[in-house]
Parts: sequence; C-alpha cells; structure tokens
Amino acid sequence: MALRPHVKTHKSPEIARLQLAEGAAGLSVATIGEAEVFFQHGCTDLFIAYPLHVDEPATERLRVLAERGRIAIGVDSIDGAARAGRHLAPYGVEVVVEVDCGQHRTGCQPDEAGAVAVAAARSGLTVRGVFTFPGHSYGPDTMETAAADEARALATARAAVEREGLEVSVVSGGSTPSLAHLDAGVLTEARPGVYVFGDAQQWELGAMPPGSIALACRATVVSLAGGRAVLDSGSKALAADRAAYSTGSGRLLDHPDARIVQLSEHHAVVDLAGAPLPRVGDQLDVVPNHCCAAVNLADDLWVEEDDALRPWPVAARGRNG
Amino acid sequence: MALRPHVKTHKSPEIARLQLAEGAAGLSVATIGEAEVFFQHGCTDLFIAYPLHVDEPATERLRVLAERGRIAIGVDSIDGAARAGRHLAPYGVEVVVEVDCGQHRTGCQPDEAGAVAVAAARSGLTVRGVFTFPGHSYGPDTMETAAADEARALATARAAVEREGLEVSVVSGGSTPSLAHLDAGVLTEARPGVYVFGDAQQWELGAMPPGSIALACRATVVSLAGGRAVLDSGSKALAADRAAYSTGSGRLLDHPDARIVQLSEHHAVVDLAGAPLPRVGDQLDVVPNHCCAAVNLADDLWVEEDDALRPWPVAARGRNG
Repeated sequence: MALRPHVKTHKSPEIARLQLAEGAAGLSVATIGEAEVFFQHGCTDLFIAYPLHVDEPATERLRVLAERGRIAIGVDSIDGAARAGRHLAPYGVEVVVEVDCGQHRTGCQPDEAGAVAVAAARSGLTVRGVFTFPGHSYGPDTMETAAADEARALATARAAVEREGLEVSVVSGGSTPSLAHLDAGVLTEARPGVYVFGDAQQWELGAMPPGSIALACRATVVSLAGGRAVLDSGSKALAADRAAYSTGSGRLLDHPDARIVQLSEHHAVVDLAGAPLPRVGDQLDVVPNHCCAAVNLADDLWVEEDDALRPWPVAARGRNG
Repeated sequence: MALRPHVKTHKSPEIARLQLAEGAAGLSVATIGEAEVFFQHGCTDLFIAYPLHVDEPATERLRVLAERGRIAIGVDSIDGAARAGRHLAPYGVEVVVEVDCGQHRTGCQPDEAGAVAVAAARSGLTVRGVFTFPGHSYGPDTMETAAADEARALATARAAVEREGLEVSVVSGGSTPSLAHLDAGVLTEARPGVYVFGDAQQWELGAMPPGSIALACRATVVSLAGGRAVLDSGSKALAADRAAYSTGSGRLLDHPDARIVQLSEHHAVVDLAGAPLPRVGDQLDVVPNHCCAAVNLADDLWVEEDDALRPWPVAARGRNG
C-alpha cells in the first residue's frame, strides 16, 4: 500500500520532503493553491483529492502544473467528469472518482462510480481509480464501522469501474483514525494527514496516545483572576474546532486531567482539575483539538531540536483556492 | 461616549483609517503584534485591551511604541500591576484595570479594582481607568442582563478606584450585542469590534439584521452528489466557531432559511430548506458565524465597489503575540 499523505495538515514543504524521503509515493492536497506551493518546492506528484469545479482559471493553473508534473484531481459526477475532460484532457491531468462511504459530504454513490469513470474516459481523461474519505470515522464508537463502510464502498466502486472495461490502478482511502481498522488489501493508497502530528481529537478518540503527539502551542499564563488559570492560546492560535466527543477546546500535555473550559480569541480558561495553579508567566504546551486547523493559523512551525528552535514556514497557509 | 473600536475584528489599516476619520478616539487591539501593525500604519493611540504578561521582550516592544505614540495596556492583578510598573513606568505606558462583569475570563473582581489601581500608581504608572468585556452577552436571552452586569461592575470598579484618591478618566466597555442595552452615561468609551461587519452570530442574536452585514465569503458550489449542495467554504475560510445558540456553521445571505449542517476544512454541506438546488459552479455568499475568526484566515479582504473588487490587506492577520 502506497502512502500519499495529505499535506493540508502541515502545509510545510520541509515536512513533505521528510515524508517523501521516507517513501511516500506522492502528496495529497485539497486545493490548486496548495498544489502550486508544493510544486514550487519540488513535489511534483500531486493528487488534489477534491471534486474541483474546473473553470477557465482552474484550467490554466492545472495546465501549468501538469506540463511538468504528475497531477490528478477528484470528480464525483458525470457532469463534472465531462467538464473536466473538456478542459483538461489535452494536458494529461488524470482523474480519480470520489465515492461517498458514509460521511455524506462529496462523492457519488459507489455503484455510480462506473458511469462517472466512463464519462471521464469518453472525454479523453485517464481514470486512475477511485477514492473516498471516511470522515465519519471521527467518533469513539465509529472508527471500526467507518472502516468497514470504506472497504465496502471502495470494493463496490472498483467493481463498477472495472465492469465498464476500465482499469483501476488506484483504490485510495484512509483517515488517521480508521486506517488501523482497515483490512490489508482494501487500499492501494492511503491518504492520512493528521497522523504526522496527532492532536487532541486523536488522543481522545484513542487513535494516538498523547506521548506520540508532535505539535503543541506554547502558551503563556496571563491571568489567575478569580482562581482561574487563563492562557493566551485562544481560538486564533488553537482554532475553534470542537467535536461532539471533545472534552474541551484542547488538552495540556503536562496536565492530562486539565480541560480548557472556555475559549475565546485570545483566552483559554483552564480547569486544572485540582492541580496547583501555575504562576502568571509560566508556559504550558497546549495540544489543539484539530491540528490541521491550528497549523493554518500560524506562519511558521517552530521545530525543537537540541534545545534550539527553528522556523519551518507554513508555506501553503491560507491557500484555500 | 468615545468610540475606540476593537480592530482585532478586521485587522485592516484601511478600515481603521475609516473608523478614525469618522471620529473614533483611538483603537483597541488584543496583542502587541496588532499594536505594532496599526502603529506602522499611522494609528498611534492604541489600547491593548488585554492583561499582558510584561516580560523583557514585551517591555522592549512597548517602549518602541510608547516613545512616539499613546499606549495603554490592561492589568487585572496587584502583581501584574506592580510588574508592569517595574518595566514600563519609565516609558509612559498607561494602564486600565480590567474587571470581570460575568464572563468569568480575565479581570479582577470589581471591588478589587482599587487595590490593583493603587499597585499600578505606586509603581509609577498612570491609571487611565477601568474596563470590562461583557462576553456573556453573546446569548439570545442574556444581552440585557449582561449589559446590566456590565453597568454594575463598572460602577463598582470606578468607585473603588476613586475611593483610593485616583482619578478615573476612562470607563470602557461594550460588546456589539450589549451596547444597545446599556444606559447612557455608564461608559465614557465603547470598544465594539464586530459591529463593523456583522456576522451570523449577530444575525441570530437579533443584534444586527442580515441586511446590515458587510462581510461574506463568496463560495462556489462544488458538488451536488446525493442531492446535497456542497460549497468550498469550509472551516479554513469560515472558521469553526459555533455558539450554543448558532443554528449552523454560517448563513447564506440570499437563502435565509438554508443552514450549513456539516462543515469540514474545505466543505460546507448546505440544507437548502426545500429551495431548488443550485448548479455546480454557482457562487453563493456565506456569512461566517464569527467575523473576527474568519477574517483572521484571509490575507486580503476584497472590497466591492462599483462592481469592481480590490484587495485590502488583513495586515495584522496572525499577530497573536
């Protein structure tokens, strides 16, 4: 199984280079803007895992990338496949058919994948295969069932495409919490993103232990008014993501029983669960609930090595389009 | 009553200039980094409405600003006031005592404001007055009661400082939803931020009508798979803020009955409440739940005038420290 990590999580060319050096087959991105940044940094095998609306500006940008790189995009409808073909067939952009496996976001039904693939092939595009994202795996009781949904949907989609006489060279899936629950052989390619750092969601799902989490926000205690410990790591640093299963708005690495009980833009109010109050000015490492969202708020990641800190730019920050 | 708008909302020097040209007395900011950006753009009367931890690096940055501008910071404890004085008294930085009026975030108790002010004055600082933020006004049933809490807390704090023989020249408060519920004469200075744009929170609180909302994210329909309308305005464009009273993850200006029922980083799934589905490629204007958080995700605001769009940089984006 190939690893094609989703780099929307870190948006960092340095981390992408580490992933590729360790054997990643290419990168997954969410937008053309992210693809452009990683392309400029020498990562030229890019899958835009998103059903792009291919208009004239998108066509021109994809043409530039495809002329010197290996570029694939998602499609999830017959119309979208035909439109992509009209614009992109001359440039060798490949497509992967997105199917819905239970998140009910984008993606055609698995048994519709054959018709979408045919529309793409007829319009002159090379169909690489099928993909899905089991986003409904983000729940303490749904990781296994979502992995089963994913396996079933991808098998159905693969069969539907092959029934049309088209080759399926890639069956792509995987989220960080569901991958461990997926049988070997379902996927030819996995696209996890969050695994590279971990975050409080993975910690609280039980998908990654806190000791393996590699990203934190170093916060300063700014107030103890009323006996409340207040940190300066607000939602403009941690992001406001909070899942139904989240126990707060982030976790403290050195205080696993503590909870962030109130979050505003520049304040995180911490319930220390009876631990002694820190002093104003103390620094605490806060793990954001969702690392992808938190990283997208920062201009640089600060990499700690031998007690020194050096900045790695979040080069694709804010590249939403 | 003076208006000292909080520019964390827009982070835009152009909008700050408009506010000052219309009579704003100065600007409120949340961080030294925001203060530096607005200072560089010619806005030199700045209140950092936050209980800063004043260490050596903060002192040096504040000194640079105070040498040529008029700078005040928040303090909410005796220790913090004494520390601020030790570092900042030589540079003419003023302080405003923060009191808690019911949000239970930062701020000393109102009747402790006198002791904090005395600590600041004894350490050589000029005490400008007292301030609070009635953040608990953000609820459909709490706008009026929070305004009453605010009035009571500020009156108590003002009296406590005056009892110590110190002059209170500024009594500062106000949030966008609570200001309309505050009696005249309570404040000498108001610090609303969100009023400049409005957002779905204000709309749903009934604090600002949708017709007055000036900020939206222009989103593109990217998928109709399964009969769901999916927009590309995900949490990396709208931010994930969702209050207890929010009816979804943002609102559509032209479809007031529609709701965003699922939000991920690059997807907003819309329930159109029975309205006909748009076409893939259609553009819709989405009002974020919380404009401050959404603006902080963008490099530029695009100002629409005479059918033309021009960019205004979000110059203080990401300046969290």
